[in-house]
Order: sequence, then structure tokens, then C-alpha cells
Amino acid sequence: MKILVINPNSTASMTDKIVASARQKASAGTTIIGASGINAPASIQGHYDEAMSVPGLLARLKQAEEEGIDGVVVACFDDPGIGACREVFSGPVLGICEAAVKAASMISTSFSVVTTLPRSVPVIEELIHGYGLSHRCRRVRSAAIPVLALEEPGSGAREKVRDEILRAVHEDNCEAVVLGCAGMADLTEWLTEETGIPVIDGVTVATRMVEALVGCGLKTSKIGAYALPIQD
Amino acid sequence: MKILVINPNSTASMTDKIVASARQKASAGTTIIGASGINAPASIQGHYDEAMSVPGLLARLKQAEEEGIDGVVVACFDDPGIGACREVFSGPVLGICEAAVKAASMISTSFSVVTTLPRSVPVIEELIHGYGLSHRCRRVRSAAIPVLALEEPGSGAREKVRDEILRAVHEDNCEAVVLGCAGMADLTEWLTEETGIPVIDGVTVATRMVEALVGCGLKTSKIGAYALPIQD
Amino acid sequence: MKILVINPNSTASMTDKIVASARQKASAGTTIIGASGINAPASIQGHYDEAMSVPGLLARLKQAEEEGIDGVVVACFDDPGIGACREVFSGPVLGICEAAVKAASMISTSFSVVTTLPRSVPVIEELIHGYGLSHRCRRVRSAAIPVLALEEPGSGAREKVRDEILRAVHEDNCEAVVLGCAGMADLTEWLTEETGIPVIDGVTVATRMVEALVGCGLKTSKIGAYALPIQD
Amino acid sequence: MKILVINPNSTASMTDKIVASARQKASAGTTIIGASGINAPASIQGHYDEAMSVPGLLARLKQAEEEGIDGVVVACFDDPGIGACREVFSGPVLGICEAAVKAASMISTSFSVVTTLPRSVPVIEELIHGYGLSHRCRRVRSAAIPVLALEEPGSGAREKVRDEILRAVHEDNCEAVVLGCAGMADLTEWLTEETGIPVIDGVTVATRMVEALVGCGLKTSKIGAYALPIQD
Amino acid sequence: MKILVINPNSTASMTDKIVASARQKASAGTTIIGASGINAPASIQGHYDEAMSVPGLLARLKQAEEEGIDGVVVACFDDPGIGACREVFSGPVLGICEAAVKAASMISTSFSVVTTLPRSVPVIEELIHGYGLSHRCRRVRSAAIPVLALEEPGSGAREKVRDEILRAVHEDNCEAVVLGCAGMADLTEWLTEETGIPVIDGVTVATRMVEALVGCGLKTSKIGAYALPIQD
Amino acid sequence: MKILVINPNSTASMTDKIVASARQKASAGTTIIGASGINAPASIQGHYDEAMSVPGLLARLKQAEEEGIDGVVVACFDDPGIGACREVFSGPVLGICEAAVKAASMISTSFSVVTTLPRSVPVIEELIHGYGLSHRCRRVRSAAIPVLALEEPGSGAREKVRDEILRAVHEDNCEAVVLGCAGMADLTEWLTEETGIPVIDGVTVATRMVEALVGCGLKTSKIGAYALPIQD
Repeated sequence: MKILVINPNSTASMTDKIVASARQKASAGTTIIGASGINAPASIQGHYDEAMSVPGLLARLKQAEEEGIDGVVVACFDDPGIGACREVFSGPVLGICEAAVKAASMISTSFSVVTTLPRSVPVIEELIHGYGLSHRCRRVRSAAIPVLALEEPGSGAREKVRDEILRAVHEDNCEAVVLGCAGMADLTEWLTEETGIPVIDGVTVATRMVEALVGCGLKTSKIGAYALPIQD
Repeated sequence: MKILVINPNSTASMTDKIVASARQKASAGTTIIGASGINAPASIQGHYDEAMSVPGLLARLKQAEEEGIDGVVVACFDDPGIGACREVFSGPVLGICEAAVKAASMISTSFSVVTTLPRSVPVIEELIHGYGLSHRCRRVRSAAIPVLALEEPGSGAREKVRDEILRAVHEDNCEAVVLGCAGMADLTEWLTEETGIPVIDGVTVATRMVEALVGCGLKTSKIGAYALPIQD
Repeated sequence: MKILVINPNSTASMTDKIVASARQKASAGTTIIGASGINAPASIQGHYDEAMSVPGLLARLKQAEEEGIDGVVVACFDDPGIGACREVFSGPVLGICEAAVKAASMISTSFSVVTTLPRSVPVIEELIHGYGLSHRCRRVRSAAIPVLALEEPGSGAREKVRDEILRAVHEDNCEAVVLGCAGMADLTEWLTEETGIPVIDGVTVATRMVEALVGCGLKTSKIGAYALPIQD
Repeated sequence: MKILVINPNSTASMTDKIVASARQKASAGTTIIGASGINAPASIQGHYDEAMSVPGLLARLKQAEEEGIDGVVVACFDDPGIGACREVFSGPVLGICEAAVKAASMISTSFSVVTTLPRSVPVIEELIHGYGLSHRCRRVRSAAIPVLALEEPGSGAREKVRDEILRAVHEDNCEAVVLGCAGMADLTEWLTEETGIPVIDGVTVATRMVEALVGCGLKTSKIGAYALPIQD
Repeated sequence: MKILVINPNSTASMTDKIVASARQKASAGTTIIGASGINAPASIQGHYDEAMSVPGLLARLKQAEEEGIDGVVVACFDDPGIGACREVFSGPVLGICEAAVKAASMISTSFSVVTTLPRSVPVIEELIHGYGLSHRCRRVRSAAIPVLALEEPGSGAREKVRDEILRAVHEDNCEAVVLGCAGMADLTEWLTEETGIPVIDGVTVATRMVEALVGCGLKTSKIGAYALPIQD
Repeated sequence: MKILVINPNSTASMTDKIVASARQKASAGTTIIGASGINAPASIQGHYDEAMSVPGLLARLKQAEEEGIDGVVVACFDDPGIGACREVFSGPVLGICEAAVKAASMISTSFSVVTTLPRSVPVIEELIHGYGLSHRCRRVRSAAIPVLALEEPGSGAREKVRDEILRAVHEDNCEAVVLGCAGMADLTEWLTEETGIPVIDGVTVATRMVEALVGCGLKTSKIGAYALPIQD
């Protein structure tokens, strides 16, 4: 099975980290193909960045369709362009926010999310409202760090994420924590150890869930909203 | 007051029609500036078209910001890229779906929507869910016509829209009907007469509502999700 | 265009203030007719006051219908008697809570409301639930002042409102603040300056939104719930 | 225990019927005091009638408070003025819609409502949304009869109600039916026999539920929204 | 009228207390039959205990059906096995959580719940979500005591419950408090006096509400989900 | 990886079919251990059957915990006892309804469910409400067949399921269909071919999703509601 794990932004070091995480948790028979955004922002910090990353994402998915890729993970927690991706691709396409919050609600009765910048909080709240899981989400929190701080050793970013998780544990009455940025994927184990609460990374969960859908023979429904684009 | 009414697709005849509708209903002191999508699909029929129309839309809004435009109407019923538009622009930005369903709920207790293609139905349902008005929306219906059929005299498109509205009147127990495509703006009066139910066109409503927000001195909040893009 | 802005309570100084605010923001061609409640409580502080204000409100609207008024603003944040008003009047009728929260959700992803007395908090929460915007409302707050304190210079009421807005800014993670009482209309600009967050006054927003609906040729739907009263 | 069962409209024959139903099902030790609306419409068919009935209703409740009445049933399915009633009265006050739909959800997983006129359908839908039971309500239906037809022998009204219930049984997949008008209270047993589905009348259910609340020593909370009116 | 009040756990002292509370508030003509769980856990502290208590509960209800019992109260705040109980029994069956939160919403606009252990909080939140009253529930709180501490004089449990209610009063902006455990039934009056807020005990409310349903001639609907089990 | 796929009812032929489906779709390295309910009903057709199946299910899960099983699939579409299962087991536990509707919402914008008996419809509707996906579910339908008819060749059950799916396709405007009974697992491919719509079987999806959770190192959170039972 071949799965494309695409980081919609153009920061190669972040893609490397994401792909490494996906590979570490993928099944034995799965090939993970990594990709970065083309003509995309260096990080996705809001709706504008998200919108600007989507055309490149879609171009890569159309190529993936031709390459015989079986499924796609869109590795940005804003789940950019998922509907459009599902139109251009036959196999399952999953965003890491959707995967992570659905997984969280399978192993806990409530969860909090810890993301990077405050401006991403309402974006994620709206996604979770759309996925129907607002009643299971205690709070979406921000560690108040730029996305790319996660790429810089010594920035203190990982400690800030840990501290925000600890605040979630003490204040939110939550049973699990979801990492609200693909760039945190490599921290999952360390954060779990440091905080004592199940910490869920969307990159690995989405990878394994796409495997699951492909393994069941499920493809994106082409009846209705996700049919192939008409004009293209 | 200067309002940009932008049709995110590239079909100039549709833009002309939209702009004419906006001008017809705008206040005396308002200047309507029209624009079509650049490098955009000829029509927006699904998530992919929507996504591909957004970069051009955003480029035009950044220009509008520099030109001193006071407010913006995004004249496509899928409300494409609204969050991103609100980031790059200071004044109010309103999509025609949001404007129309909010107006509908001010003059009726329930409404149905009549759009073009079936594939747009779930897109619109999801928008209405996000706007919190699912409990006021009886049904989103499709007249089963391509968007551009509305541009072709003799295509029978307007009659199909009328007939679908009549079905809504008879089957949905609704009190108003919302036109689910910017390309229907010029049909509003005819449809109202033919069907006997209040028919709401998002283009004119959004234009007047943006006027309203500008007139009250309201601008897009730059605290939080709609702050200026960081990297741009 | 002629718009009736009616303060359902009987306090003339409050009506004057409300009407002045409406006039200040209304379009050039709009005539604002002001009115106070007849046989109404001096202020509306709860369901009882609200109920007692409605018959006078309806009598005035029936008169307005005969006078050829185009639209009506009900200038009390509890949106009293709106359904009944829509039955007796042909043009659009809008309450200031509905107008303000819908406007707030057009320029921000979340808002808090600051009202006068604590007892009004659940009344407003229930309204917002009905309008479908609970997921966009961070919190309804009270400045713990009687409505009429807003009429008394030196009462400290305006400072208390400001302080509560500042608490909203610091504690609620909101992007805009809605003023939860018609009697605060004159404070909007001062509060915006003092607090640095967009402050939304329902009186002016409702006035301009009624203008918008009238300008688009929209009237209250007479099919269904808002049909003329049968026995009257 | 003394319970006031008040019909907010002024039609004495309807009051008699309502009071007889309440007495028939009340506990042995309960005294039912009946009352009609004063200066009220002959029937309540919409928001306007509802609003006009409330001041008389409130006056009667203030008198009831002085008379030592223990609890109140407001016997109109639109639940008019309930919030205001709860402010002026110490004991429990219950509307028949709230009582009936809560009872229905205790003995079934879903119910439909059959009311009189189509214009009441959205009013009742909004009430049920407020009570949080929309997900348990299959459909609100109208038998297309004026309220007072229920007072006229030979009007065919009762047969129309029965036929609408049968339609609910066949089309709605519901497990119980709620009668959506106080004037149907005397038909409950006949309708149950004719239709074979549990038929719930709000008048009797509300009477017994108010008995229940009084019997438990519960009174309307005077902390917050239902505190005594301030100015009165 | 004969009502079975069944404590699903096996602790006889708790059953005695529950039955005494039910008897104290029941109507004159009502006979309360008490029962403890058979082969049941000593207390119900979570889903597992709940599940293990249900077969014994169902066996007792089948016996009750043969004994001509008119209605049943399941006296555990987790409302265990209510759907199954409604299948095997003809008369009304009510859990104390459902009864209490529905009563709370009849006498207040918002309530908080105080339960025993933290692990019961999400269980109760999910129940309230299912009953459609999340928007009326400020918070579900835990007094951090094991259920059986309520049976031990000198354990300090009742004081902890009181203190948690006081925290609800000060922090939650609630108008009533619901006791989240059947074992608190005997504390209702004392807690009301100590805290000054209406305190609602589900045992007594459910008993009186079952009386109400039986008194109205209502039985569990046997059309659909609550039909008799097929294989039994 | 070892996954227990447990059919909570006692019908061995159904277990065999379920286990065969799970094995067919499981990853290469996964061992599927099958189990039937002990002291359980022959089929689960309602709340009572569900409740009676749970103690045996829990006993088997405790054994599984000792045997080092990594994850559990509860193969009944009513998702019986999932909360209790999550308390007694360390690894992920997933019901097939939850798995299937979450998967359906990953590959489509809306789905319908086709189950066996009408009495299961409200049970499933309530589950989907709890999972937050009511807005994505068009309709829960019944093929009007007893569960065990699926075990009898020549019963016509499979044709009835197919016909009901075709009705869903034509009437519901859905994009996918979820099979609402574990006993339909072996029909998935045939039904997909016959109906032309993506057909989702919960057994295989749940198996692969449990693999996914285990593969990511996720276990049931033991903080809060799913902590180990206290008394056991």
C-alpha cells in the first residue's frame, strides 16, 4: 500500500519530521511517500496561509492519482482543502485534525487540543464543530509559539507545549490531549512521558486510519459532493 | 462608500449580471466596483473549483485594501475563502450564502435553498451548519442545472429554478426561498412573482449588509483568527 | 425610507439617546422615527417587564403599518415580542440582539456580550441559542448595573461597562464585544477606544440592517408563522 | 394542594373543558382552580394572540400568589409568557408544551405533535428546540383546523385531528403523539383508542407534573432570571 | 398506585434511605415498594458497575410487571439500563437523572450537578447531552467522595457535598443544583438550608413524576424501541 | 498484534462469519481471535438483549486483558457496553457503529444506515447523536428482517437489505451506506456491486481502526471515566 503524506507548507525540515513519524508507525507493508507544499507558505498560520497552500496540494494529489497512490494524509492541523482533495483523488484522504479528534473520542470521553498560535484556536474550534465533536472537546489551547519554532532546537517550543499540556491536565478535566500541529509529531512520546496523559498526534493516527480505510477497500464516494471536478 | 463585489469565477457575463444586481439595490451613495476571478475556473461547482478560485480572489482583495475599498462581497454561494479574505482585508467581507440565510431568518421562521447542481447541496448544508441555521433551513434543493446554463438564454435554466422553488413551496413547508447561486441574482423579481413566496438573492442582500456594517463603522476584528497574515 | 426605532420602555431620555444613535449612523435618505413604549415599564429588566411592554409595542407597530413605515427596529436587547411584531407589520422587523450577534459573527469568529443586570444573562443566552450562535458566543456577562443607571451621569455605569468589556478581553478569548442593552448605544465609540476591541451596538446595526432588507425589497414573509393575526 | 389551571384565551367553553380534564386526572387531594384569560383573544393562533394574552395571565398569577395557590399550569400549547409567569409566582409554573414533550420523551424514543393551524407549527418547533428535544421530535403537524372548531360539535375537527394522528403513525415512524392544543384535552382517550398509539395531552400531564414539583417542595428558583420583577 | 423504587446497587442501607425519601414525598395513595440490586455491585461508580447491575435490575422489573406494579423509579443517577427496563415493563420507568434535570429546567434557567466521584462526571454529561439539556447545565461537578462515604456517619461526605454546592453557587452562575447521586436524597433539605439555592433530589422528583405519568394513564410506548423483547 | 473480535450474541454461525470478515481485511501481522457471547441472547434486537449480553462480554474482555490481547472490536451495531469495556481493558475498544459512521464521514459528506428490525432504528439514531454525527446521517432505515434471518440461506434477507439500500440511494440523497448489523459483514462486496454506492461494514472497519490505534501506541485513557473499575 502506498500512502502520500503531504505537508502543505514548504518547510522541508518539517516534512522530514512528519514523514519520519508516519514511517515509524506505519504498517510493515506500507510505503510512505512524503511531499512538501509547492509554492506554499513556509508555515500555515491562519486561513490565508491555508488557502495559499491548497492549489499546490491539489496539484500534488492529481499527480498522486496518476502514480497509483492508495491514500493521502494531509499533514496540517487546519485540514486545508480536504473537500477539494477528496474530489481529485479516488482513494481516502484524511486531515490530521479529523483523524486525531475522532481517535481521541475512541479512547477517552473528552480531550483538549494544544496548538501553536492563538489565532489557530478558532480555526480548530470550527473544524471540531463541523466534525460534530464539540461536546467532547474541553478546550482548544495555544502554546503561544510560531509553528516554525518547533523546527528550531533551543527555541523552548517543546517545553512550552509540555507546559500547556500540563495546564490542560490541571484545568480542563480532560482525559486525553491532541497535538494541534503536524510539527509536534516527533514530540508525542516525550510529551506522553512528561505529562502522564495520552497524547495523540494526528500525523501517525491519520496515516494508520488511511491504511485502515484502504485496507477495507473503501474509497472516497464519487456520488455527490466529492465527485471528480467537472471542468478539469 | 466603495464596495467591491467580486465574482470568484472567470465568467465575465456572470460578473456583469451580478454587478448590475448589486448596483440596482445599492444605496445612492455607494459605488460598486465589480471584478471577476483571475486564473479562476469558469464556474464554481464544488470544492475544487472553490479552492482554485481563492488565490485570485485574495490577490484582488489585497489590491482592494490598497485602493481604499470599504467592504467586500464575495459573490459565490459556496462562500469561498471568506476566512482568508477577512485576514487580508480591513473592512467587512461577506459571502452571499451567509448574508442570504441570515436575512432569510430575519423575515421568516424557515427557508429552503434552491441551488444549481446536486453536488453543491452538501457544500451548502455544511455552510449553514457552520452559521448555526440548520434548524431554520427546511431543505437545500438542486434545480439540476450547471451554473453556466444560467448564462445561456434558451437553456430552460430559469424555468427549472422556478419549478424547483414551486416544489419547495409545496413540499417543504418553508416561508421563504434563498437562491443558491450568484448567477440567479437577476431572476429574483421574476421568481418572486411566479412563485408567490419571498425569494432572497444573496448578492443584493450581501451588498446592502456590507453597506450596513461599513455604515456602522464596523471592520473585521483583527484580534484573533482574522488578524493580518503573519508571513505575507 | 422611513424606519421606526422603538424603545419598548417608557423612559424618554433613553429613547432620545437611542434615536440619536440610529440617526447618526442611518443612510442619508433614511428618516428615523423614534418612539417610546406606551403603558410600558420604565426599563426592561426581565421577562415580566418584557411581556408588559409588548402590547404597547404592537399598538405602535399597527399604527406604523398605517403610516407607511418601511421597517422597524425594536430597541431592547431582549428582543421582546419580535414574532408578534412580524405578524402585525409588513416590512422587516428586527430586534437589536439578533442584529448585533449576526453582525458580530460577520466580523469575528467569536464574541462576548456585556449586559446590565445578571438576571438578563440567561434571557440573552436563550435568545442566542435560538439564533443558532451559541457556538460563536464566548460568554454573556453582566456589568451589574440597573438599566437606568445608564441614564444617570455620575452613576459610574459607563465605567463599569468598560471594565466588564476589559474583563471579557482578558478572560474570554473573544474577538468582538456586543453591547447587551439599547441604553449603551451612545457609548460605542468611547468603549471601542478605551478597550481596543470592536464594540458592536445593536441599535445602529439593526437600523442599518433593516435599511438593507428594505433596500433589497424584502418584507416579512406572510406565509406561515408571521401571517397577519387572524382575529384582529 | 391548590393548582391554578389557566387557559390564557377568553373562551369559557374551552376553559371548562380544560379544567374538567385537569380535575379528572388530578390527585385526590388536589384542588383545581380554573381561569380564563381576561382581555384576551378568543383563541391563541400565533405570536400576536400569545403576546396579547400575557398581561391578563400575569395579573391572574399575581392574584394567585396572594391566594396561596401552590402551582400553576398555563394551558396553551404555545407556552405563552412562561418566563414572566415564573417571575411573578413563587411556586412551579409549567406550560403544557414543555410538560407534554418532556413526558413524551419519558415513555418513547420519538414523538410527533399534532396541532391546529399550520401557522402554529414553527412556533412549536421553536419551543421544542429551546427545550432541547428537537432530536426526539419526528415532526410537528397541523390538522388544518382553527382552534375554536374544537369547540363546535359537528365541525369535523376531532376527526381531522384523528386523521392527522394516523398520518403521523404511518409516515413519521414515531412512537407517541402529543396533542398540540389545550382544546384537544377531552379527546385524549378517544384518540388513543382510535389510533392505537400513546396520545399525550399536555393539560393533564402538566397538572400532574406541577403536583409532582409542589409535592417535592420545589419552587421556582428566585436566583437569577426568575427573580421577582424589580419595578413592580 | 404502586411504585417500585429500585436501588440498582446492593447496599441495603442506601436502599433504605432512598425508599424513605420516596415515601416521604409520595402522594397519600401511593405505595412505595423498595428493592436493592441482586448480584449487583455495592455501589455504582462507573460504566462497569452500571452494566453489572442491569441484569438484576431487569429481573426485578419483570417480577414487578407480574406483581401489577404501576411504575418504576431506577434510583441511580447514571440512569442504568433505562431503555431495557422500558422494554420489559408496561408502565412508566424513569431514571433519577432524567427526572431531576427535567425538573430543574422547569424551575430555573440553568443548573449545575454535584455528584460523588470525578469519574462519574463524563457519564452524567453524556446523559444530559442525550436528554437535550446541555445548554441548560452550567457544570457537572464532583465532591470527590466515594458513593458509600454517604452511608458512613462521620465521613465528612455531606459537608463535602455542601461545600461543592457552595462552589457551584459562587462560580457557575447557576440557579439550581441537582444532586448527582441517589445516596444524597436524605440531605436535600439540609443542603437547601445551608446553601440557599434550590436543591433537587432525583429520587423524590422521579417518584412524583412516575406518579404523574401513571396518573395520566400513560404507559411506555410499545411501538418501536421499547416493545417487549422478542426472544424472551 | 492480537485483536479480539467479539460477537456479543451467542450465535456461533454469526461469529464465524464476522471473524472471517475481520480476518479477510486485517493486516498481515494481525491475529484475529474470535469469540461469541456467553450466556447471551441468540441475537441482539433491542436494549434488553443488549443489556443481557454485556456481563458475558465484560468477562471475556477481562480474560483478554490477561491474555495480552492488544485491542478489541465489539461486533454488534448497538455498540453494547462500550464504556464498561473500556474500563476493564487497557487497549483500544471499538464498537462497529462508531467505527462505521466515523469512517463513512471520512469518505462522504452524508450517509444512510440500513439495519435489520425497525426497533433498532431509534437505538442507532441515539448512538449517532452521541457520536455527534446526526448532521451527516441522512436516515437510519430498516430492512424489516430479524437479525438471524441473515444466517438462513433462502430467507431473502440479503435481497431485502439490497432493496433497502437502493431505496436509500433513490430517496435519501446520501453518498454512502452503512450496514447496521454485524451479520451483514459478508454481504459488503455483493451489496457494493449491486447498488453502486460505497457500502461500509463496521466489522472490518472497526478491526482496521483498532489496528490503527494500537499501531500508534494508543490505549484507552485511564484518567477519568474509563479508569479501572474501583470495586472489582
